[in-house]
Amino acid sequence: MKVSVVKNILEANERIAQENRAIFDEKNLVVFNLMSSPGAGKTSLLEKTIGALKDELRMGVIEGDIQSSQDAERIAALGIPAVQINTGGACHLDGNMIRDTFKEFDFDALDLLVVENVGNLVCPAEFQVGEDFKAMILSVAEGDDKPAKYPLMFHESEILLVNKIDLLPYVDCSVEKIREEALKVNPGLTIFEISCKTGEGLGAWYDWLRDKVKARRSARKQQ
Amino acid sequence: MKVSVVKNILEANERIAQENRAIFDEKNLVVFNLMSSPGAGKTSLLEKTIGALKDELRMGVIEGDIQSSQDAERIAALGIPAVQINTGGACHLDGNMIRDTFKEFDFDALDLLVVENVGNLVCPAEFQVGEDFKAMILSVAEGDDKPAKYPLMFHESEILLVNKIDLLPYVDCSVEKIREEALKVNPGLTIFEISCKTGEGLGAWYDWLRDKVKARRSARKQQ
Repeated sequence: MKVSVVKNILEANERIAQENRAIFDEKNLVVFNLMSSPGAGKTSLLEKTIGALKDELRMGVIEGDIQSSQDAERIAALGIPAVQINTGGACHLDGNMIRDTFKEFDFDALDLLVVENVGNLVCPAEFQVGEDFKAMILSVAEGDDKPAKYPLMFHESEILLVNKIDLLPYVDCSVEKIREEALKVNPGLTIFEISCKTGEGLGAWYDWLRDKVKARRSARKQQ
Repeated sequence: MKVSVVKNILEANERIAQENRAIFDEKNLVVFNLMSSPGAGKTSLLEKTIGALKDELRMGVIEGDIQSSQDAERIAALGIPAVQINTGGACHLDGNMIRDTFKEFDFDALDLLVVENVGNLVCPAEFQVGEDFKAMILSVAEGDDKPAKYPLMFHESEILLVNKIDLLPYVDCSVEKIREEALKVNPGLTIFEISCKTGEGLGAWYDWLRDKVKARRSARKQQ
């Protein structure tokens, strides 16, 4: 009975996510879903990424938070269209919440839409929103045992950004162990080691993202 | 319809939690539910607390993780009865999972049972397990905007442990702001600033916990 309720919710969400995806495809819009624990650096990564790429990629951001609009305000301050979703208690974004933001955007004026999920290393990984790919952040302050303990998000993501590497001298965390354990869960994972504070490692992420968006858009055009 | 399903799940859980609580009361066992984001330091806090108090308080621990038994092994290595719950994907512990561990413990040989919840700053706060009180940890590496963005756990907790204060020189986080924002959400919150790494501030927490367990047990005896 319980399992069946969960399955129905997930199936209903999957259908809405596919509808969202069809709209993104029609508009030739690349979408990624950015997930992490609270405070791992999602909004900071977006601020840096927008600063670096906004002249090359026309970006928009959907901010998901249980409440408050601080994150959307941080993004909007950079001159980027940003819509805040307040889930009112819910621990993840779903396809329906994303669909509700569509009227706020002009998708013809965007190349890339980023969905910043609610800070939670568990539930967001279960819910598709219509994205092209998922990216996750793990802060080194969270420790190197996280891929083994919270495997689903590592399994579902195409990108793992290991953030706050400037803290490595002060915390008990091995990036080598994160890499090994994360690749055990998902051998296809692409991993970047970054510091949103110092900027270290961000260039490789910008290059990857720029290439990904261009490749995706040109593949769509050839379809 | 959706709301009604959620409500029924929460109501069923509430009933089971009350049954658990009746058993804890009968055994004169004090129980607290320890919650935080992944990697904020729940298991480290328990290791330190057990080391400091195990000659005064007979402690047992229930470890909740989606998978793996690393945390229960860390606790059992200290000579403390520890039972691992693997939720198999679920993002929080509920009353039923806790009840399933009872056969593994001799409650007559314990004064204090700690339930270490799944690492998640959102969902665990919604589910009672029969505890006397809830305690939560926020790592300073997570940032000082968390009480405003994830208010429910701050609202439900009696204790907030602000951990990893040894990292304060290296992160953009004001403990003063955490205090202010957390007290806005829950004016009754008792706050400790600690470092499980250096031991700073832990003495005050040990004193509070020792007094709480003793006061609770003597209040029960007088009933």
